[in-house]
Amino acid sequence: MADERVATPGPLLATINSPAAIRKLSQDQLLDLSFELRDYIIDVVSIHGGHFGASLGVVELTVALHHAYNTPDDMIVWDVGHQAYGHKILTGRRDNFHTNRKYGGLSGFPKRSESPYDTFGVGHSSTSISAALGMAVGRDHNQEDKHVVAVIGDGSMSAGLAFEALNNAGAMNSNVLVILNDNRMSIDPNVGALNEYLADITSSGTFNKIRDEVYDLLGHFKSAGDKMRKVASRLEAAMTTALTPGSLFRALGFKYYGPVDGHNVKNLARTLKDLKKIPGPKLLHVVTVKGKGFAPAEKDQVKWHASGSPFDKVSGASLAVKPVKPGKPKYQDIFADTLIHLAENDRRIVGITAAMPSGTGLLKMMKLMPERTYDVGIAEQHGVTFAAGLATQGLKPFVAIYSTFMQRAYDQVIHDVCIQKLPVVLCMDRAGLVGADGPTHHGLYDISYLRAIPNIVVGAPMNEIELRDMMFTASGYEDGAFAIRYPRGEAQGFLPEGQQPSAMEIGKGQQLREGDDIAVLSYGTIGNEVVKAAAQLAEEGISVGHYNMRFVKPLDTALIDTIANRYQRLITIEDGTRLGGFGSAVAEYVAENHPGLAVKIMGVPDAIIEHGSQKELYREVGIDAQAVTEMVHTELNRLPSPLLQSARGH
Amino acid sequence: MADERVATPGPLLATINSPAAIRKLSQDQLLDLSFELRDYIIDVVSIHGGHFGASLGVVELTVALHHAYNTPDDMIVWDVGHQAYGHKILTGRRDNFHTNRKYGGLSGFPKRSESPYDTFGVGHSSTSISAALGMAVGRDHNQEDKHVVAVIGDGSMSAGLAFEALNNAGAMNSNVLVILNDNRMSIDPNVGALNEYLADITSSGTFNKIRDEVYDLLGHFKSAGDKMRKVASRLEAAMTTALTPGSLFRALGFKYYGPVDGHNVKNLARTLKDLKKIPGPKLLHVVTVKGKGFAPAEKDQVKWHASGSPFDKVSGASLAVKPVKPGKPKYQDIFADTLIHLAENDRRIVGITAAMPSGTGLLKMMKLMPERTYDVGIAEQHGVTFAAGLATQGLKPFVAIYSTFMQRAYDQVIHDVCIQKLPVVLCMDRAGLVGADGPTHHGLYDISYLRAIPNIVVGAPMNEIELRDMMFTASGYEDGAFAIRYPRGEAQGFLPEGQQPSAMEIGKGQQLREGDDIAVLSYGTIGNEVVKAAAQLAEEGISVGHYNMRFVKPLDTALIDTIANRYQRLITIEDGTRLGGFGSAVAEYVAENHPGLAVKIMGVPDAIIEHGSQKELYREVGIDAQAVTEMVHTELNRLPSPLLQSARGH
Repeated sequence: MADERVATPGPLLATINSPAAIRKLSQDQLLDLSFELRDYIIDVVSIHGGHFGASLGVVELTVALHHAYNTPDDMIVWDVGHQAYGHKILTGRRDNFHTNRKYGGLSGFPKRSESPYDTFGVGHSSTSISAALGMAVGRDHNQEDKHVVAVIGDGSMSAGLAFEALNNAGAMNSNVLVILNDNRMSIDPNVGALNEYLADITSSGTFNKIRDEVYDLLGHFKSAGDKMRKVASRLEAAMTTALTPGSLFRALGFKYYGPVDGHNVKNLARTLKDLKKIPGPKLLHVVTVKGKGFAPAEKDQVKWHASGSPFDKVSGASLAVKPVKPGKPKYQDIFADTLIHLAENDRRIVGITAAMPSGTGLLKMMKLMPERTYDVGIAEQHGVTFAAGLATQGLKPFVAIYSTFMQRAYDQVIHDVCIQKLPVVLCMDRAGLVGADGPTHHGLYDISYLRAIPNIVVGAPMNEIELRDMMFTASGYEDGAFAIRYPRGEAQGFLPEGQQPSAMEIGKGQQLREGDDIAVLSYGTIGNEVVKAAAQLAEEGISVGHYNMRFVKPLDTALIDTIANRYQRLITIEDGTRLGGFGSAVAEYVAENHPGLAVKIMGVPDAIIEHGSQKELYREVGIDAQAVTEMVHTELNRLPSPLLQSARGH
Repeated sequence: MADERVATPGPLLATINSPAAIRKLSQDQLLDLSFELRDYIIDVVSIHGGHFGASLGVVELTVALHHAYNTPDDMIVWDVGHQAYGHKILTGRRDNFHTNRKYGGLSGFPKRSESPYDTFGVGHSSTSISAALGMAVGRDHNQEDKHVVAVIGDGSMSAGLAFEALNNAGAMNSNVLVILNDNRMSIDPNVGALNEYLADITSSGTFNKIRDEVYDLLGHFKSAGDKMRKVASRLEAAMTTALTPGSLFRALGFKYYGPVDGHNVKNLARTLKDLKKIPGPKLLHVVTVKGKGFAPAEKDQVKWHASGSPFDKVSGASLAVKPVKPGKPKYQDIFADTLIHLAENDRRIVGITAAMPSGTGLLKMMKLMPERTYDVGIAEQHGVTFAAGLATQGLKPFVAIYSTFMQRAYDQVIHDVCIQKLPVVLCMDRAGLVGADGPTHHGLYDISYLRAIPNIVVGAPMNEIELRDMMFTASGYEDGAFAIRYPRGEAQGFLPEGQQPSAMEIGKGQQLREGDDIAVLSYGTIGNEVVKAAAQLAEEGISVGHYNMRFVKPLDTALIDTIANRYQRLITIEDGTRLGGFGSAVAEYVAENHPGLAVKIMGVPDAIIEHGSQKELYREVGIDAQAVTEMVHTELNRLPSPLLQSARGH
C-alpha cells in the first residue's frame, strides 16, 4: 500500500539546513543547488503527491532570493503559496517535507506559526503586495533596515486586491520589491487583458525592436543641431518611460525591471543584489515556465498543477495501484453535467467561473458552449457583479465559486445582487472541510454570512440527486439570488442513469426517518452521516427521527413545528461553523416559538481547523456518523431537566 | 421652520419630461438646458440639502449622454450614483426631486425599481464597469443593438473591482464605453498612484507637447529615404500607443480617447456620437470640476460634497436657524479623539481609512500625525491586508471602515487577519441604520458576518464612554482581531471632560437594571432606547431587567446563566439583522443550555430597508424605545405557555 520509494536530497542540498548556508555558496554552486532542489521536489511529490507545478517554476528564483537576501530578517512574501515548496525545503523543513499537506504535517502553504521564514500566511491569491507594503511601512515606522519582497504570479495580478496594493504602494514610495512571476498560468491558463499585455512584452520582441530602432534614430538627432538635440533628449526620456515594457506598472508608480529569464539563477542572484540598492517601489518581471524541468508538467500545466497520487518521476505515469475508485462521480461532475443539461433547455442560462474552470467542473461547459461560459480570471468580485449585469438583461447566470473564495465577493452578493433582487445563482463549491488545502480553503462561513442577507434562497442538497433538483429549481427562480452549497469530492453514487432533474419546493425539508427518542435535523451532505448513525442507533434500540432540511433560508418552520410537537430534544448538524449558521437558525426559531425544546448544535467549532484528509478532519471536529451516534447517547443520557420532566410528564 | 423657498425650473428645463425631448434639442439649446439644470440642482439642494458636488460636475455630461444615446434602450450605468441628480431630474423625476433622500421619497442613488432609466442600483463605488460589461454581454447574447455606457469617477477607479472589470472587459472585446469622470476627488481628495498618473495626463500638457514634437519629427523622416520611412511608420504606430495619455488603459485592452473638457456640452455630445461608431471596449477621459458652477463648492469640494441643511444659493451661507444642536459630539469625534489619545501614549498605534478621512473622523489624526495615518483610497480589501502586514511588524493598526464597506474586505478579515490571529482593530463606523443613504449603506450584517469567524473579539459600546473604553481595551489586545461597531451621528452626551479611558473586561456584560418580569439584553447603542423603555415601563409598574451585553463574541454566558435563573422570558435587541446576529447568539446558547427560557429577538427584519431619517427608520423597523415598550407588553400579555406555567409555577 505505502510507497516504498524514499526521496534523498542531493549532496549539496543535504548540507543546506538554513538559508544562511545558501548565502555562502559560489555562483556555480547556486546552479548545483537549483538542480538538486528541483530533483528533490519532483522526487517527493512523485511519492507523496502535492502541488508542484508552481514550485518547479520558481526553483531558481527561490535559491536566488535566499542567496541575495538576509532572510528571515529580510522578508519574502509568497503569493498564494503554491510556489513555496522550494522555500520550505531550503528553510529547515527538508526532512519533514514528506509530511506536506498531510494530517499533522507541514502545511502546503507558507504559515507564520510554522517558520519565521514564512512571513505571511496565504492560500487565497493576490494578498502579497498588500502584506509586503504593510511590512515595509511597519519597518519604516520601526526605523529598521530590512528588505521586503513580494513574489506574485501573473494570474494573481488580475485580482483587484493586487491592483489596489500596487496603486497604493506606487503612491507611498516605501521601499518594496514586487517580483512578478510570469508563467502565463494560474491553475488554469490565465485570462484577461493584463495577460495579453504581458504576453506582448515577453513574446514577440516588438517592444525591444522598436526601442532599439528609436535609440538608433536618436543617435542621428544628437549629432544634428541644437534644437534637434533638445527634442531628442526629451524624446529619449519619454521613450524610456513609454516604450519600455512595463509602462502599465510605471503608470502605477513602480520602477519596472525586466523581463528576465527566471531560470538563470546566476543572473537572478546578480539582479536581486543590484535591486537592493534601488529605493522605492519597484517591480522585477521574471519569466518562468510552470512545471519547469519535469517534462510532463511543462507539457500539460493544468493537469500537473498538482498531483494527488504517486507517479513515475520520468514519464509521469501514475503509480496508483488501481483507479481511485470506479463509479462514483464527483459533485463537480454532477454540477457540470446538470448545468449543461439545463443550459441546453434554457437559453438564458450562462456559466461563470473565476479562474477555476477545472476545479469547478465548468470546463466541460466551456468546451461545449464557449459563448455561454465565462472565465473572468481571479476576480470573484467582478464575477458576481458581472453576473448581476447579465441578470438585468434577462439572463440566468450560474456563478460557480468556492465557498472560501465567495468571501471575496461578499459585498457584491449583497449590494449588486440581493439588494436589487436579481436572479443570480451562486454555486458554492468546496463547502465544508476541504482537506489538504487547510484553514485558508475550508468553506465554513457561507451558511452564516449568506443567510443574514435578504432576497436570497440558501440551500444545500443532501446528495447528487438533490443537487440536480436544486439547480433545476434555481434555474426557474426569479425572485432574487439562490445559493447552493456542496462539498469537494465524491458524491454518494445515487444518481440513476438518465434521470431528469425535477423541481423542489423551496423552503421545504423532508422527513427521512420518523423517530421517538430524539430528532436530528441535518443540512446538506452531512446528512448522509446521520443516515448511518440512525441505522446504527436503531440497532441499539434507539429511535432517531431524521429530517433533511435542505434550506436554511427560507427555513421550514412548519416542519420544525411538527418536530416540536413530537420530540423533546433535537440535534442540528451542518458542515459549517456552529455560529450563526443552520443550527443557529433553528435555535432562533425554537427559542422564540418552542421554548422547552432543547437544541444541540453540531457543527465545526469556533476555531481554525488545520489540514488533513476530509475524513480525518470531519472526525477531528466531530461531525461524522460516529460523532452523531455519540451525541445522541450524550443527549439521551443527560438527565432530562426538571423543566422538561414537569412539562412533558416524564 | 420649513423653508419657504420653492425651486422653479427654467423655461427649457420645464419642458423636459423625458430624455426623448433632449434628443430633439439644438446644440445651443443643450447649452441652455445645462445652464438651467445646474441652476435647478443648486436651487433644490440649497433648500432641501443633499449630495451635489458630484452632480454639478456632470451636468453637461448628463445632458450630452441623454442627447447622444437613446435611453433607456441604451443603458447608462452611473457609478456610486452621487452623480445622478441631473440624470434623475431629466428622466421624469423633476417634480418629485425635492423628496430626494427623504423618507418615502426618491432615493439619492439610481435605483432600478424607481425608473427604467436607472439601469443598475448603486451606492458603493466601482461597480459600474462590471455591471455595464454584464449588460453588454447580455445584449450580445440577446442579439440586440443597444449601447452601454458606464460613468465612473477617478476615485472609484482605485478600487480593485473596477480594475478587475477593466481587465476582463479589455479581453472580452464586447462593445462598451467607459467614461472616466476625472475630477480628482471622491468625497475626500483622491490618493494613489493612479491619481497621480491622471494628474500627469491632464495637468502639465507634457504628454501632448511631446506627442506634437514627435509627429513633427516624423514628418521630417517621411520625406527622407525608404528605410527611414519604414522606421518612421513603425515609430508612429508605437507613438500612438505609447505616448498618448492613457497607455495604462490601452495596456488593459481599451481604446483611449481624451482627455476632453467635461463642461463643453456641444463637444461632449459630438464626441459621444462619434464614439457610438467605434466597436469594442473604449474609454473616454472627461475632465470635470466637482461642484462646478457653485463657487463655494468649487472652492471647498470636501465640505460641499453634500449639504445637510439649507443654504444661501449664492454665498453658501447656512440658513439653518440655529446650529444643529450644541454640545453633543458625534461618535466619529469620540473615535478620532480617542485614537489620537491612544496613539500619543502608544507608538505602535496607526490609523487607516479607505477614502473616508472626513467621514470616519480620522482626518483629525491625519493632520496631527500624518506619518501614522494612512488613507489607502477606495480600497477596503487592501486596507485590511495592509493592516495585517503592519501587525506582523508589531504595529497596532486601527482600521476605520464603515460597516457596509467592510463587506468588501470580508475575505481579508478572515484570511489575512483572523486565520493568522493578527492584532488588527476594526472600527466599524456607520453600524445600524444610517439614514438618508438608504439600503446600500445600512450597516446591518456585520454582527452576523463577523461573529462567525474565529480569533476575533466582536463588541459594541452602548455610549461614547464605552467606545473610548473599548478602543482602549482593543489597543492592548494581542490575541487576534478586535471589532468595535458604533453608529453614525450624535453620541449620548455622556462623556465627562478630561476622563481617561479605562479597560473593560472582554466578554463581560453589565447589569444596568434588575427586574422581575422580563429581561432585556441589548447590544450597542440601541441599549439607550431600552433605558427609556424600562423607565417608562417602571412607571406602569412593570419591572424590566436590563443587561448591556457589550460583546457578542465572546458572549457573556455566565451573565446569561444568571439571567436564566431569574427570568422566564427575555428579549434581545440589536440594530442589525435579526438573522445570525446578537439575538441569534443568545438563542444558540439558551436553546442548548436553558431550554424553557423563551427568547424574543428584536432587530432589523429580513428585508431591504429604504432610506429616511435614522429616527424614522428605527421607528419603521420597530427597534426604538416605543417598540421595546410594546414588545414587553406583548410578551407579558402572551399567555405563559403551559410549559412555563408548570415549570416555573406561575
